[in-house]
Amino acid sequence: MQFELTKEFLDSLREFIKQDNKIAVKEQLSELHPADIAEIIEELDVEESNYVLLLVDHDTAADALAELDDEDRSHLIKSLPLATIATRIVMNMDSDDAADIIGLFDEDEQQEILSYVHDIEQASDIVDLLNYDEDSAGGLMGKEFVMVNENWSVLTCLRELSRQAEDIDEIYYVYVVDDDTKLKGTLSLKRMILSPTSAKIINIYNKDIVSVTVDEKREDVALIMEKYDLVAMPVTDSIGRVVGRITIDDVVDVIREEAEKDYQLASGISQDVDISDSIMVQTRARLPWLIIGLVGGLLDAFIISNHEADIKLSPMMAFFIPLITAMGGNVGIQSSAIVVQGLANNSLGYESTFKKVLREFGRSVIISSICSILLLGFSLWFFNSLALTLSAIIALFIVIIFASIFGTLIPLALDKFNIDPALATGPFITMSNDIIGLFIYLSVGSIIFSALA
Amino acid sequence: MQFELTKEFLDSLREFIKQDNKIAVKEQLSELHPADIAEIIEELDVEESNYVLLLVDHDTAADALAELDDEDRSHLIKSLPLATIATRIVMNMDSDDAADIIGLFDEDEQQEILSYVHDIEQASDIVDLLNYDEDSAGGLMGKEFVMVNENWSVLTCLRELSRQAEDIDEIYYVYVVDDDTKLKGTLSLKRMILSPTSAKIINIYNKDIVSVTVDEKREDVALIMEKYDLVAMPVTDSIGRVVGRITIDDVVDVIREEAEKDYQLASGISQDVDISDSIMVQTRARLPWLIIGLVGGLLDAFIISNHEADIKLSPMMAFFIPLITAMGGNVGIQSSAIVVQGLANNSLGYESTFKKVLREFGRSVIISSICSILLLGFSLWFFNSLALTLSAIIALFIVIIFASIFGTLIPLALDKFNIDPALATGPFITMSNDIIGLFIYLSVGSIIFSALA
Repeated sequence: MQFELTKEFLDSLREFIKQDNKIAVKEQLSELHPADIAEIIEELDVEESNYVLLLVDHDTAADALAELDDEDRSHLIKSLPLATIATRIVMNMDSDDAADIIGLFDEDEQQEILSYVHDIEQASDIVDLLNYDEDSAGGLMGKEFVMVNENWSVLTCLRELSRQAEDIDEIYYVYVVDDDTKLKGTLSLKRMILSPTSAKIINIYNKDIVSVTVDEKREDVALIMEKYDLVAMPVTDSIGRVVGRITIDDVVDVIREEAEKDYQLASGISQDVDISDSIMVQTRARLPWLIIGLVGGLLDAFIISNHEADIKLSPMMAFFIPLITAMGGNVGIQSSAIVVQGLANNSLGYESTFKKVLREFGRSVIISSICSILLLGFSLWFFNSLALTLSAIIALFIVIIFASIFGTLIPLALDKFNIDPALATGPFITMSNDIIGLFIYLSVGSIIFSALA
Repeated sequence: MQFELTKEFLDSLREFIKQDNKIAVKEQLSELHPADIAEIIEELDVEESNYVLLLVDHDTAADALAELDDEDRSHLIKSLPLATIATRIVMNMDSDDAADIIGLFDEDEQQEILSYVHDIEQASDIVDLLNYDEDSAGGLMGKEFVMVNENWSVLTCLRELSRQAEDIDEIYYVYVVDDDTKLKGTLSLKRMILSPTSAKIINIYNKDIVSVTVDEKREDVALIMEKYDLVAMPVTDSIGRVVGRITIDDVVDVIREEAEKDYQLASGISQDVDISDSIMVQTRARLPWLIIGLVGGLLDAFIISNHEADIKLSPMMAFFIPLITAMGGNVGIQSSAIVVQGLANNSLGYESTFKKVLREFGRSVIISSICSILLLGFSLWFFNSLALTLSAIIALFIVIIFASIFGTLIPLALDKFNIDPALATGPFITMSNDIIGLFIYLSVGSIIFSALA
């Protein structure tokens, strides 16, 4: 039932664009949802995209642009004349999307774009929204909402709705306010329809308020809307007056982005990259972590070089270097991932840090005992050396416990200092645990090998 | 403005429960949203939770249970008598949540629970829903929706709405169908309110249909609702008749779960674990990957043991073992993470696999050149050995390119065979790249060291 973008579709569209066959392009794009147009534009180059944007109707062009991801949108928008941006795009967008677009420009350009926006109310909404930090509720919210006074009747309310609602795509609730426009509650359209028109709002609205203030962090906005299953949430200023609303589609994007960011950090990628991104973009995202890894590897080399004589005497000591470093890294990542995820979905519970670490200590003793016993068997069986086996299992036992506790503590500590705890997972924690594991293994090994030699 | 769960709140609640002080417990829980009650229940033990569930009103108890995560809910539900489950919980839930609850029991118990559900229509809705795979659209959907005939007037429609809408919490759209109940489009409540009551539905409804069939996979349901910014989506059977609707709150859970699953797999955790989970649960989730890592480490040990003589001669060769294995692992994880994420959010584009790998090859040559040049400088400076430096940079150059291509190919291949590509990231790819990297390094090293010796 949905549109499915195929290579054939793209090839024929590109061909029509090349031939400047406006009728065929229009025909091919007619009936498509703006989200489909956005998907197509992501595959086109800037000129082709502009060609498409200027052919479809204003609303579709604006909606398609709102659907694009940040990078593609910024790229495309910057290639259009400011007047076109104002009249074809900004004026046909919801205020939050319009503010995002205008926020891409410097102040002079912003002034110029806004000067083409004839609707004063719309321009002032956008100017308002530009003031908020984009990572806050203010940065997510839009100005498209309907407010009704608690003292009105349903009939007055319906009239106000028809007056205010024209510019708003979707309305699910209206916000009920007092005479000072302070938020008192919400009223669903369903309730409004099912109530007699003479009913007073004050008697039928829902007084349970779930709202946020403009400066709430966007991750917290997402957690609140998710927890209370809201499709839209009012945003108030510091004294409780309604100044905007956040819709679930924007929050879905936040949830996806936050989850992807954690995943990227855990995988050692420092920014959003696509498989199709250029060499430059990918290298910039990947190289920093690799250089950290390189430095870590050099530190490992120094530790080993300190034991050069021991290894010359007993080269067997080198056998388990990769095993110990890998296990330290793996355990550390597991522990930190559990904490990072708990912080992200707010499920860490109410224990003190000390208790959390104590529990992790208990678990890691079990895990390290099992792993050490397995290694004991394997190592004795295959390599038949008591010194090697003893060094390996003692080191493994210590390394797993250490890596668990380290992996638990570091993200908790980062979070306390308001640093993204996801930074702790991935290359950083692997590297630290590699170094520490190696140090423990070679120190233990050199003592045991010389004792048993 | 929202409820914030504190240790003090929990301690006092627990104390009241212990004293069997019903009035105080009720008082403490009054005014709380079911989602808050769910949050509290997650911190209580089973007896305390039951105490709370039986004290709050039926609707709140049902809604709170619907908000719990699967494990806690299943645990709690199984401790209640079947009749209580039916009358207090199931009968007050939306059909999709009710089916989830009943799905926790075996067939005999399901029959017994359903026998207590007096509303025949509700019982038959639940029986219907139990037939669908829980990972499909059918498993996500509920039966709470309002259908109107395209030939009706707005007035008939409003009457039908009041008739059907009583049991439904939130309605944002009604579904417009023909005489065979086949889906023709949607009509928003806003549009209904703003149209004259004499208007015919057929002239005002929105004919753009975005819907899925019952057997659509839940990840795809999430991608479609996300793409088209829907708060609810109709579900049809194979011939296009409306059989249910999926709401955005269920999809938000799917998005969060899918993202968390990928993150867990990348971090070497095989199932959803919390920091507060028991030692058993955590060990079960973590041990499998650690044993794979252990086996990988043993294979590494065999490879090194093959070069024992070389290392005895030139113990320096051991210096860069951790660096080479770590870099292979890091690069492999980066490459596979980019592919896994592209597969998850459907942004991989339309190039053939061959072209994707070719691009990755190009990028990896750049990255490996930069890393090798850096290592060249570091290694010569610090260790002043041509043989060591040459072995290390040649191996590093090959390993990075190999790991990039391997990391790109494996998740693409897994996806082709319908295996979760996220399996490829994390310990599995690190382990493979460790082994291959080590093999290359020691082979290259033994040649160069013996040539330059």
